[in-house]
Amino acid sequence: MTATQDVNRWLAEFGAALEGNDVETAVSLFADECYWRDLVSFTWNIKTMEGKAQIADMLTATLGHVQPGNWQLEGEANEAGGVTDGWICFETAVSRGRGHIRLIDGKCWTLLTTMTELKGHEEKKGPTRPMGVEHGVFKNRQSWLERRQQEEAELGYTTQPYCVIIGGGQGGIALGARLKRLGVPTLIIEKNPRPGDSWRNRYKSLCLHDPVWYDHLPYLPFPDHWPVFAPKDKIGDWLEMYTKVMELNYWGSTLCQQATYNEETQEWEVHVNRQGEELVLRPKQLVLATGMSGMPNVPSIPGADTFQGDIHHSSAHRDSVAYAGKKCVVLGSNNSAHDICAALYENDADVTMIQRSSTHIARSDTLMDLALGDLYSERALANGVDTNTADMIFASLPYRILHTFQIPVYEEMARRDAEFYEQLEKAGFMLDWGDDGSGLFMKYLRRGSGYYIDVGASQLIIDGSVKLRSGVNIDHIKEHSVVLTDGSELPADLIVLATGYGSMNGFAAKLISQEVADKVGKVWGLGSDTKKDPGPWEGEQRNMWKPTQQEALWFHGGNLHQSRHYSQFLSLQLKARQAGIPTPVYGLQEVHHLS
Amino acid sequence: MTATQDVNRWLAEFGAALEGNDVETAVSLFADECYWRDLVSFTWNIKTMEGKAQIADMLTATLGHVQPGNWQLEGEANEAGGVTDGWICFETAVSRGRGHIRLIDGKCWTLLTTMTELKGHEEKKGPTRPMGVEHGVFKNRQSWLERRQQEEAELGYTTQPYCVIIGGGQGGIALGARLKRLGVPTLIIEKNPRPGDSWRNRYKSLCLHDPVWYDHLPYLPFPDHWPVFAPKDKIGDWLEMYTKVMELNYWGSTLCQQATYNEETQEWEVHVNRQGEELVLRPKQLVLATGMSGMPNVPSIPGADTFQGDIHHSSAHRDSVAYAGKKCVVLGSNNSAHDICAALYENDADVTMIQRSSTHIARSDTLMDLALGDLYSERALANGVDTNTADMIFASLPYRILHTFQIPVYEEMARRDAEFYEQLEKAGFMLDWGDDGSGLFMKYLRRGSGYYIDVGASQLIIDGSVKLRSGVNIDHIKEHSVVLTDGSELPADLIVLATGYGSMNGFAAKLISQEVADKVGKVWGLGSDTKKDPGPWEGEQRNMWKPTQQEALWFHGGNLHQSRHYSQFLSLQLKARQAGIPTPVYGLQEVHHLS
Repeated sequence: MTATQDVNRWLAEFGAALEGNDVETAVSLFADECYWRDLVSFTWNIKTMEGKAQIADMLTATLGHVQPGNWQLEGEANEAGGVTDGWICFETAVSRGRGHIRLIDGKCWTLLTTMTELKGHEEKKGPTRPMGVEHGVFKNRQSWLERRQQEEAELGYTTQPYCVIIGGGQGGIALGARLKRLGVPTLIIEKNPRPGDSWRNRYKSLCLHDPVWYDHLPYLPFPDHWPVFAPKDKIGDWLEMYTKVMELNYWGSTLCQQATYNEETQEWEVHVNRQGEELVLRPKQLVLATGMSGMPNVPSIPGADTFQGDIHHSSAHRDSVAYAGKKCVVLGSNNSAHDICAALYENDADVTMIQRSSTHIARSDTLMDLALGDLYSERALANGVDTNTADMIFASLPYRILHTFQIPVYEEMARRDAEFYEQLEKAGFMLDWGDDGSGLFMKYLRRGSGYYIDVGASQLIIDGSVKLRSGVNIDHIKEHSVVLTDGSELPADLIVLATGYGSMNGFAAKLISQEVADKVGKVWGLGSDTKKDPGPWEGEQRNMWKPTQQEALWFHGGNLHQSRHYSQFLSLQLKARQAGIPTPVYGLQEVHHLS
Repeated sequence: MTATQDVNRWLAEFGAALEGNDVETAVSLFADECYWRDLVSFTWNIKTMEGKAQIADMLTATLGHVQPGNWQLEGEANEAGGVTDGWICFETAVSRGRGHIRLIDGKCWTLLTTMTELKGHEEKKGPTRPMGVEHGVFKNRQSWLERRQQEEAELGYTTQPYCVIIGGGQGGIALGARLKRLGVPTLIIEKNPRPGDSWRNRYKSLCLHDPVWYDHLPYLPFPDHWPVFAPKDKIGDWLEMYTKVMELNYWGSTLCQQATYNEETQEWEVHVNRQGEELVLRPKQLVLATGMSGMPNVPSIPGADTFQGDIHHSSAHRDSVAYAGKKCVVLGSNNSAHDICAALYENDADVTMIQRSSTHIARSDTLMDLALGDLYSERALANGVDTNTADMIFASLPYRILHTFQIPVYEEMARRDAEFYEQLEKAGFMLDWGDDGSGLFMKYLRRGSGYYIDVGASQLIIDGSVKLRSGVNIDHIKEHSVVLTDGSELPADLIVLATGYGSMNGFAAKLISQEVADKVGKVWGLGSDTKKDPGPWEGEQRNMWKPTQQEALWFHGGNLHQSRHYSQFLSLQLKARQAGIPTPVYGLQEVHHLS
């Protein structure tokens, strides 16, 4: 039997079992170790069912209303190393979907099902794109510009958006674009004046650490001369352009002050200040897209108020030129800490990094080659793996076993760059590879921190150009120095607190209430029982892009990849609710941690 | 022999003949009726050789330095209706190229050769795209923003652009983008403040008359929800954002006052006023991209100075709202005249159109289906004909015989819309289909005028909602009326002169000198010996995108399709000159008409 026949046979049996409501037969088609990751299609949730029992439970709960059918293989299936895999498509009563399947010995090992569109609410594109002009004669016709200006004038004033997105970075913008195409009236609220400012406001030398193939926004990919690692101001300009041409309703210079959900009217009351004007918005849905870097984590250090130099969080660090010849202390050892140390050094400052705990370092070139190269690279493109395909392959790997794919990558990295790591350790730098050796990406998914993608600063640590104090913290601050926990003292004109960011949950507490923040619980992380990601295992990222314990409250964000891909699933959940399509949520997550 | 074998055999024989400098054998491979259209590769010109003698002459003059080789078929050839055709690629000593060939009975009927890139000067894209960040540590590193700001501050002041483009509409912008990717320092000069203003400033109801598939700019296609006929302000916003993200050096609110070529220094001296600041630019190359609509054609009508109402050229017509209840006379019967009549009618004005001479009318839906559908449409996309492929197919049809492909299209249009045309004639409208019945596109190529793409106004003429006076002109204007050449008088509060535009040659006269304008001669048209396009036959559009009789002076423009496709060939000609690659021009056109 060929790979294609194998998958076709499986899909036929699976489809028939589901059609016959025969959960037992359907489950019997899975291997003992099996995973079904569903992005919205079956569960109206983002959920991985692990093992036959969970799959049986999900099917029992959902089959009656989901009514899946029309399972088909797209193109040909492949076989490699005992695993047969293929792309599939299917339908439910209300939607169409795409997915991916892996079979071992004819049984399903991994299944991915994702919703691509709601029937009757398809995005207008290609053959269904709008005409742009209405041919014919219409008395007092409105032009496109007049309609657009009217929409801008009315939305939030005389008409209410169905959805308000708080935070107009890449997350809010990508989601806003999808909701625009789906016809969901949406307002994006951003504290900075212009789209892209959250990038422009960062330190001068910042470039994306992720490569271009990983970073596309929905619908409008970067042109093919776009740099591999886009400089911050360039990505800022792109986001501004994108917001304009996608016709997003975007309120810059607007502070969101308070939000309350009225259970009775099922409406949010969102108090905002738009350039001095106090307004109340009444959306049905509220999305917090303030990002992984929305809430600076500023440690309270004794004596900080007596410091006579400059002290600021890394998020407030701009240009390093002013610190030429100055003594600078950078607290922290992740991406921002390293980038800022290098920028200060490049501008002739005297720099000391204070490393409190071990850090994972991955050299950019090696990381791109080993960890991303098969999916997001020119090599991938040449192999037919475009960004959309890469997103789907990536989504098809269950989080429960993702680390097992990652560990060998980082073992190879350690081998390839052995001399580099040896030199770093010799310089006193405390290295780690994640609790289980699974490296950078798992750290990102589990805790969103704990690493530096080396683009040059590690060499400064190695050769002593940037001084390193590791295994210590700042104990207290004096007028012109910091005193470390080992009692030593460093003179300082500048202290940069590269101490990371708090949970989006903290923003919910600030904006809505501590009660709602506690009800919703921790945002981000998998429950991997590793550092900063306590168990129990939850199987998907907590609270991201899916229903939370607070009705009509959603969290959106992550890197450009996640903002692109998961905005698809969040936008379809919101559209379904706006369209009045029933969205029975299977397996709403329990809350195990407050923040 | 299969189609593929047929083309491969032909290419092998052709390649061998060229390699052996054997013009006679090479020419013997062509049919008696044959055309070779070369876009830059062989001729450093835009040139169609018609018949064996012209081909022999061109090869004799160019083979020695062009050194063509490596002729290959791309993919498979096809055979239909006795014609075998295929896509080809080839090289010359200094460039790579693509082309298209049609064989009949094993002999070449049409050959297209186009330059795609200069060896050693390839655009940096895909695998050769820039990194964006320089990994490593560099003292006093400049950020992308600082470099960009420095470039903007210096270009035109302390450093001189190699190329100045006058006119920042779609033509100047598309060419500017190509020159940017080729690394040719370029400044675009535009009188309006913002990119896109030349669209924004037109009458409110204007939408593109060409469909989206025909309108893409280079490198950054519209997203797939872009409307079929983009409203003017939307295309304006797109051009503005495109200019920004492509990092074009664009001076808005800048008037170009005078340009002189110094034969000795081989440099232009271009006097501009940039927002009040007088500056002299000294580029090596000057491109006039002021467009087909750059020089309004304003007839001098006796008594116009005594008119008490509003009188303006169609290019100055904005909003029609102000004319509700007013008596409006529109002189002209082409696109703008019809659009403005309809907009005035929609705003409750009393409108009369004065048709001086016959006009070709094509209904938009019919035109899209019959004339563009095979190349630029969703149907074309579904058949694998994307915009780039369509551009090449289009370019492969020699102008000498293009009308023979067009005539049947318009015969079918006349059949399909017979009732419509009958009604128009009954209403007194003077119709034509071009001198030889070849319709709209040939009119555009020959004279750039003489037609209306009907999007609704014709029905107003038919039912009398817009009054029509045809076969007359305005003889003179009185305080509150116009007097027509038949002696009749029409009361008027508004006169719109939809009287078209002058030649780009006129702009050269104004900017440079009448002497240079006369030396260069007429711009646009083919020499078809039809109305407004006097013979002799020239074979390509006069002076467009190719060397002119004035060293270092170029004309660029046309619709979005031409701005996109021909900017490729103009940019390569300019790049070659900047790079010091010899560019011996074959067959520089003679001047037959002054303007």
